[in-house]
Amino acid sequence: MDKRIYFDNAATTALDPVVLEAMMPYLTEKFGNPSSIYSYGRESRMAVENARKSVAKILNARPAEIFFTSCGTESNNTILTAAVRDLQCKRIITSHIEHHAVTHTVEYLDELDSVKIEYVHLLPNGHIDISHLEKLLLSSTDKTLVSLMHANNEIGNMIDLHEVGTLCKKYNAYFHSDTVQTVGHFPFDLRNTPVDFITASAHKFHGPKGCGMLFINEHVRIKPFIHGGSQERNMRAGTENVYGIVGFAKALEMATENYLAESEHVRKVKYYMHDELQKHIHNVGFNGDPLGRSNYTVLSVSFPKNDKTGMLLFNLDIHNICASSGSACSSGADAGSHVISAIHPQDDQVTVRFSFCKYNTTKEVDTVVSTLKELLNN
Amino acid sequence: MDKRIYFDNAATTALDPVVLEAMMPYLTEKFGNPSSIYSYGRESRMAVENARKSVAKILNARPAEIFFTSCGTESNNTILTAAVRDLQCKRIITSHIEHHAVTHTVEYLDELDSVKIEYVHLLPNGHIDISHLEKLLLSSTDKTLVSLMHANNEIGNMIDLHEVGTLCKKYNAYFHSDTVQTVGHFPFDLRNTPVDFITASAHKFHGPKGCGMLFINEHVRIKPFIHGGSQERNMRAGTENVYGIVGFAKALEMATENYLAESEHVRKVKYYMHDELQKHIHNVGFNGDPLGRSNYTVLSVSFPKNDKTGMLLFNLDIHNICASSGSACSSGADAGSHVISAIHPQDDQVTVRFSFCKYNTTKEVDTVVSTLKELLNN
Repeated sequence: MDKRIYFDNAATTALDPVVLEAMMPYLTEKFGNPSSIYSYGRESRMAVENARKSVAKILNARPAEIFFTSCGTESNNTILTAAVRDLQCKRIITSHIEHHAVTHTVEYLDELDSVKIEYVHLLPNGHIDISHLEKLLLSSTDKTLVSLMHANNEIGNMIDLHEVGTLCKKYNAYFHSDTVQTVGHFPFDLRNTPVDFITASAHKFHGPKGCGMLFINEHVRIKPFIHGGSQERNMRAGTENVYGIVGFAKALEMATENYLAESEHVRKVKYYMHDELQKHIHNVGFNGDPLGRSNYTVLSVSFPKNDKTGMLLFNLDIHNICASSGSACSSGADAGSHVISAIHPQDDQVTVRFSFCKYNTTKEVDTVVSTLKELLNN
Repeated sequence: MDKRIYFDNAATTALDPVVLEAMMPYLTEKFGNPSSIYSYGRESRMAVENARKSVAKILNARPAEIFFTSCGTESNNTILTAAVRDLQCKRIITSHIEHHAVTHTVEYLDELDSVKIEYVHLLPNGHIDISHLEKLLLSSTDKTLVSLMHANNEIGNMIDLHEVGTLCKKYNAYFHSDTVQTVGHFPFDLRNTPVDFITASAHKFHGPKGCGMLFINEHVRIKPFIHGGSQERNMRAGTENVYGIVGFAKALEMATENYLAESEHVRKVKYYMHDELQKHIHNVGFNGDPLGRSNYTVLSVSFPKNDKTGMLLFNLDIHNICASSGSACSSGADAGSHVISAIHPQDDQVTVRFSFCKYNTTKEVDTVVSTLKELLNN
């Protein structure tokens, strides 16, 4: 039996066996190309369209507003590119703590186009300074896209989609929210949320890797990012990843069905870990607003930088504990976290992100905390 | 038992059970994010890098030249976009019979940028007019990308990569070939082929949907198409579709291992169908150069347009026979084939593409030909 403790669910999650089971027919006998008109094609087409309907229903959107992509990153690239190219946005307001899928795309557009990038200030606890956002929106009549993530992937801080969206609407700005960390973890009611674009990725909520989603509000018209065939109603060319799409929908259905119990369980694990760390680890700190407006799946912990904490992640790994310093998408690169730097420029701490899922237990927390005690307090 | 006859393997192929078996560990216990540093991450990273090495070895390329993407279409978009943006190509020479992943991307770049598009003439049999290609290359000193597919997906016509590549080299043009219909169907020796970029898609050779590949010759430097994390050595952001990548490599390994026997078998099925159709169906014709420089997997058949042929594909479907009018990527749209129009502008025939794989048999051909006899000759 696998004795590893996996506390890095914000990086990726295990595929739920029930989701895999729903995908299996499309990995075996139902292999047709959904664009084909014959029986094999029609059963694949039906699977894709049923997945779209199911996702739309859960998010309270229309099926025509849901597009499947290859990942959350592609979804975010699609929106940011289209905002400048198709919606004639001359300005993007974003923050320094967005995922690289947003920050690097924004920087790329900045180099390429005559688009102005403005960064909203952060409060000491990592939250967006809403009054500064309004000040920025007020300061120019240029067509603007606001891109602010729903829940930060490293520290868990959340924005209020209604609050930010209402402000955007007031100043006639488009609003994009990277919701990769929250779709499948929170209920959405898109018909009654003032947001133009949201994005998601199946592997963040026990669905398969290789399938993302994009919601485009029906009031907005953009052109495709990837050109070619007429898949996804001409919005995303390339043969559909049918079993990925089926898995996306099934994972979202499972998450929705079990939301109350599972979110309660995961929140309990996070809070328990927070309390146990405070009890047992000297000088422990927490980034962001862990017990406030925060994703119940993420706990970003800080330790004073010293000999013992320098190799902490490696030592945890040796003890079969999986955690990360921040975004997995950044950990391949040898740079520190841009999110932590944005809120703690002084660089005197070591950060470990623990992120939880329905499979985690408070017993696992006990093991992790006692390992940390051993590694740090001696 | 499934009685369907699947003769549309150029659209997509059935996932080989052996390939699925190789993917299964990454759909179950080995779910880590390859960018993560701990054990789960490392085993995923190892799988991705082993896949890359295997693919590189088979194609006789270096691992650093192989990049995994979400599909062939994304791969083609990446190259065409980068040629204009990063390589300062002012001209793209292509043909009217490319896949929409190329033609529509080229048209998009034409609208967007100051790039000139020129189309090489076609010979009556659908082959590229090489002397016209040379004339075009000679006619301008503008930095040029030549984009010509290796094997046409609708009619099967093939170019000689060495001949076209050598010509491109002579005139200092970059050479991109959409090889989506040939990787996994022919041996490649990229180190000794004068080509800068090729593309592939796993689901065209019994691998999974949702995973493509891009070869970028080490002498060429381009920037990413999708921005974000540092995956694929900063060339393709987004969490890797690990099991898709594993499946890509396994499918290519299987195809390579069994190439001689399988290609011989499939060629026999195609030739048999060609001969049987000629024997039994009045006024049957063939598009392209079916018995000449042609992909052994594709047979494009034409019938005179009349009452009986108008609904031919639907009638074949009723008889459990899967075939297509052309590209699956176009069949969602209600337009005729741009490939057939380019070689037969008169529009007096009905085209059916039959495309074959290792699972097909001459017995299936007998059934299809006798069904066609019944449908057409009465």
